[in-house]
Amino acid sequence: MASDLLEPTVYVHGYSASEATRLADQAQTLAELLHHDTRYPASARVLEVGCGIGAQTRYLLRGSPAAHFTCVDRERSSLAQARAALADMRDAAARVELVQADLYALPFSPGSFEHAFVCFVLEHLHRPVAALRALQAVVRPGGSVTVIEGDHGSTFFHPDSPKARRTIDCLVEAQARAGGDANIGRRLFPLLVEAGLRDVSVSPRFVYADGSRPRWVDGFTRKTFIAMVAGAREPALRLGLIREDEWAEGIADLERAALDDGTFCYTFFKATATVG
Amino acid sequence: MASDLLEPTVYVHGYSASEATRLADQAQTLAELLHHDTRYPASARVLEVGCGIGAQTRYLLRGSPAAHFTCVDRERSSLAQARAALADMRDAAARVELVQADLYALPFSPGSFEHAFVCFVLEHLHRPVAALRALQAVVRPGGSVTVIEGDHGSTFFHPDSPKARRTIDCLVEAQARAGGDANIGRRLFPLLVEAGLRDVSVSPRFVYADGSRPRWVDGFTRKTFIAMVAGAREPALRLGLIREDEWAEGIADLERAALDDGTFCYTFFKATATVG
Repeated sequence: MASDLLEPTVYVHGYSASEATRLADQAQTLAELLHHDTRYPASARVLEVGCGIGAQTRYLLRGSPAAHFTCVDRERSSLAQARAALADMRDAAARVELVQADLYALPFSPGSFEHAFVCFVLEHLHRPVAALRALQAVVRPGGSVTVIEGDHGSTFFHPDSPKARRTIDCLVEAQARAGGDANIGRRLFPLLVEAGLRDVSVSPRFVYADGSRPRWVDGFTRKTFIAMVAGAREPALRLGLIREDEWAEGIADLERAALDDGTFCYTFFKATATVG
Repeated sequence: MASDLLEPTVYVHGYSASEATRLADQAQTLAELLHHDTRYPASARVLEVGCGIGAQTRYLLRGSPAAHFTCVDRERSSLAQARAALADMRDAAARVELVQADLYALPFSPGSFEHAFVCFVLEHLHRPVAALRALQAVVRPGGSVTVIEGDHGSTFFHPDSPKARRTIDCLVEAQARAGGDANIGRRLFPLLVEAGLRDVSVSPRFVYADGSRPRWVDGFTRKTFIAMVAGAREPALRLGLIREDEWAEGIADLERAALDDGTFCYTFFKATATVG
């Protein structure tokens, strides 16, 4: 497993303050859509891997008010932010343990948990099937694995714009060069099946924003999606994937889709499956 | 309005027997997803424009068992097929009037109907806003307009394939050259607003097929979507949009997405709005 620990995975979105704000906005807007049907019973032991700054964790805690969570991330600074972010939640300290560890070398015995949960993690990994097997190894047979991922290739909008699509392609390409797959959502079903999970069930979660839905236009189109693409400017330019003026035009065209007569569509995928 | 009647609109899917089978398969698979929430009250007078062979009409009749329908199409042969298709439905003869007419020159007085319904029609028109205005003109103020359209640009699948995407692009391009827009679904909100309709509300209807959903793989991916794209082979080749061998490879790659480890995604849009 040593080679896994040394795997040169690069987190394409970075760890900046604006990125932390984007992650919090994203989680708030999407919480209901993505997490409303994740409910763990009292006393259940749940493992969240790749918790980052705890953006999803607070919604997991709310949805399952009597479950116990072990939240793992490999970045010490992210865990510190997660601890601060959860400080205002009653009982959080008693119900959440934050652990610094690598997904491929989890410091837990087999069957330590009833459930495992990963959100926006597999998309960044070289070997998502190996990651799913690592999760299964610490969940007891009959327990569950829940995986939530986006799919940037699911994006479409009005007015359509090849320049805007190109900025999204740059993010996908930058993520691919870092070993990930920003279009992984559509692959969840075969990935979970290949990892040996049973009763795999995938539920698409479609986001649609138009002038009659200002909360989604602002919370998702602008503050989640466009902010995410805009955050890939530096790697996109550094990798020579696009010129600076083309980038600016593409982002402007994306912003055009957030005006009153524009529309924006994106699909997340939520997969659940049984272990063993 | 004479120029509208002479408008050289070409129905890209044609009028063949295999196309009729495709339309019936499509309607059956999608009926619940698209039509379950269309319910017209007893005695309501409903106008369906572009009813074609009646593929959607039978679901309209089932959903609103005491409403009266006037179903319009400009093709006499399609109306004859619609009449035959509805013959097995009790009361259909008493509740449905089939009328040959052009959408832009409807032979009805203002306010003749409480509701208008169009499904897979605007995508084929040069001037969808003018069409929506023509519908409004015969619906009484306070009545409703319902529009259902697909969006071929919403399609994505696993394994992804540029060749497969190219066959879809050919269909989109052939439809565009005939004056239509196969990606119209994402534009329904601004189109209905521009046409002067009130309280426009758009509801996306996402289709997802994977190995755990064989009914959708067979009924939608294969018999609806791939059959539709395959039906555009002749115009695509005639227009010189693609070579014969490229076409065959692309269709084979689409069929690859219908295997057990493939996935397929498509989005329909259903818009409702108030007249006047």
